Amino acid sequence: MSAEQVIVNKGLEGIYFDNTSICHIDGQRGILLYRGYNIHDLASNATYEEVCYLLLYDRLPTKDELDQFDAALKENRNLPSAVMDVIYAFKDGHPTDVLRTAVSALGTIDPDVKDMSLEANLRKGIRLIAQFPTIVAAHERIRKGLDFTPPREDLSHAANFLWMLKGEEPDPDAVRAMDLDFILHAEHSSNASTFTARVAASTLADLHSSVVAAISALKGPLHGGAAEAVMEMVEAIGEPERAEGWVQEQLAAKKRIMGFGHRVYKTEDPRARHLRELSKILGEKYGEPKTFQILQNIEKAMEPMRAKGIYVNVDFYAGSIYHYLGIPADLYIPIFAIGRIVGWVAHILEQYSDNRLIRPLLHYVGPMERQWVFIEQRS
Amino acid sequence: MSAEQVIVNKGLEGIYFDNTSICHIDGQRGILLYRGYNIHDLASNATYEEVCYLLLYDRLPTKDELDQFDAALKENRNLPSAVMDVIYAFKDGHPTDVLRTAVSALGTIDPDVKDMSLEANLRKGIRLIAQFPTIVAAHERIRKGLDFTPPREDLSHAANFLWMLKGEEPDPDAVRAMDLDFILHAEHSSNASTFTARVAASTLADLHSSVVAAISALKGPLHGGAAEAVMEMVEAIGEPERAEGWVQEQLAAKKRIMGFGHRVYKTEDPRARHLRELSKILGEKYGEPKTFQILQNIEKAMEPMRAKGIYVNVDFYAGSIYHYLGIPADLYIPIFAIGRIVGWVAHILEQYSDNRLIRPLLHYVGPMERQWVFIEQRS
Repeated sequence: MSAEQVIVNKGLEGIYFDNTSICHIDGQRGILLYRGYNIHDLASNATYEEVCYLLLYDRLPTKDELDQFDAALKENRNLPSAVMDVIYAFKDGHPTDVLRTAVSALGTIDPDVKDMSLEANLRKGIRLIAQFPTIVAAHERIRKGLDFTPPREDLSHAANFLWMLKGEEPDPDAVRAMDLDFILHAEHSSNASTFTARVAASTLADLHSSVVAAISALKGPLHGGAAEAVMEMVEAIGEPERAEGWVQEQLAAKKRIMGFGHRVYKTEDPRARHLRELSKILGEKYGEPKTFQILQNIEKAMEPMRAKGIYVNVDFYAGSIYHYLGIPADLYIPIFAIGRIVGWVAHILEQYSDNRLIRPLLHYVGPMERQWVFIEQRS
Repeated sequence: MSAEQVIVNKGLEGIYFDNTSICHIDGQRGILLYRGYNIHDLASNATYEEVCYLLLYDRLPTKDELDQFDAALKENRNLPSAVMDVIYAFKDGHPTDVLRTAVSALGTIDPDVKDMSLEANLRKGIRLIAQFPTIVAAHERIRKGLDFTPPREDLSHAANFLWMLKGEEPDPDAVRAMDLDFILHAEHSSNASTFTARVAASTLADLHSSVVAAISALKGPLHGGAAEAVMEMVEAIGEPERAEGWVQEQLAAKKRIMGFGHRVYKTEDPRARHLRELSKILGEKYGEPKTFQILQNIEKAMEPMRAKGIYVNVDFYAGSIYHYLGIPADLYIPIFAIGRIVGWVAHILEQYSDNRLIRPLLHYVGPMERQWVFIEQRS
């Protein structure tokens, strides 16, 4: 093939690499389905545990199945002491780095580490869903010099996370917000971290390795880091009435406004609706509506951009939820990961089930044959 | 777009995702260039340190530059004590898992962790090139209950690795074999681990995160695990005269022969020539030519497959080199990583230099809108 005939699809935009039955996104109409269920139905009715079951088993659980699944999660919330030691040893690191390292360490000693059967992989996946919140909460406590708060079996996944993080009984609105946030972040087709997980899985790397690859990709500001960047913007703006002017200045300087636009959505991200509502409720409840108002005013100032298909995405209001829950900014990415781990597991299992090594090509544009020169003759 | 119009490129085979000036592979003619230099010239003339410089800086170093680069590698061979502790704590794990965890831990405490400048990334890359052999050798010693052998500044990269691994002065043929093996594994365009590194880097995840993602992908038997599988085959065959019959049986049962065929090469992998020669030399030197003879006989029995473009690949003779060097089979993947780390770093830097988020699509083939059913009504 001559160089002229090569088509380079930079970023692989618009290229399909496989079929899936996990998630459907209609970016034109703003529709998001998990296993065929509309995200709005799930946001209004489901718990995160139920959504996990749905994503892993492709159907909603009966009461008995959900109880069993929930019991399995609760049983697996504790971390091996060697992994707790890793968290202590690297406590001053960025929480995403610590999560990645702890999960990698877990993969080294997982009881099913050599078993690639579906049953073993589901066990590993359930363990990871249960362990992620403990890693993040333990790290947050330890780096603050506080005692680790052990998990409680009488609390839901979301409530237990807040309990471990804060060491105090979480209020029901905070629990609902956390649960809904996990649901909305549980899955989003082949975003960069999930795609990374599938690329690793396509070499038949084990589940923990593939999840570690996903966490590695989540670290990047173009993927998992946007919620934090939105809150930095809110801080820079400071007051609701300054939002419009600030946005105009940024647009005039051709700078990007964080939390807007999406590779797939060309209308409003359907998840934004629920996060906007939550942000409003929490802002009023905690007597600090300013953050929400600044976000609202930014959104309003950005309305003209809708003509170009640029709307708020999932990250825009997510940061404010975490802010209202008193969660520090460098935990936003790990919290994204706590929600998304189930989606990664579902995709890794789907990749294993009908695998083909994912290996696209790079088009060489360098010199063709450079002549070797001995070191004495180089200048 | 209707479902009929979607083209799914499973495995992204034949799809170009970017331009590169690092590596050229002509799979039809069996040509491999690093930065424009033919692999045969590099194999005959260069050291691994020189190849590292070439891959990172896009030109061969002068004597002074090479000395400086070599000094930087030597300075960075020691590991922080917290990372040594991780190796001790997880010593019973698979060496690839331990390498992945140690590198992830290094990323958590790297002095340049927040600096994304090219200079900082080159420093991080050089540190990782220097640290990889120490991690692998330290783990091997520690899990055997032996004392860690500290690195020596008077030895080359390859010689020092063998020194740390064995705790004895390595012989020159072993050093040459190790050095050449590292050169031949240093780079190979967008193989699965390098592609994984670039996908992670495309989110602007930091260098350590991107390298961790690469190691995660290398774990899979479809990528880094083939050399080990070849040596298992050699063991199963046992005697040179049994090779032909064994191959016929496998082919009749439509089973794959490990170490043959490649997604890109449709003729002999140019790296195989050098590894074949090394295998022969080491087999004779160490008075154990049987392994080499079995491999030769397998290759001969596979000759009819050449009509289908199936030839030996890099993994076929690599395992026998490690075997002759007395290296256990579960270190083959980490040793691949010791060679390849420089290629990963070069690709991560290239990705950063002209980045676009790598985010292909999945084609949804599941049900369109399933109706929510309350849990009491599910059966």
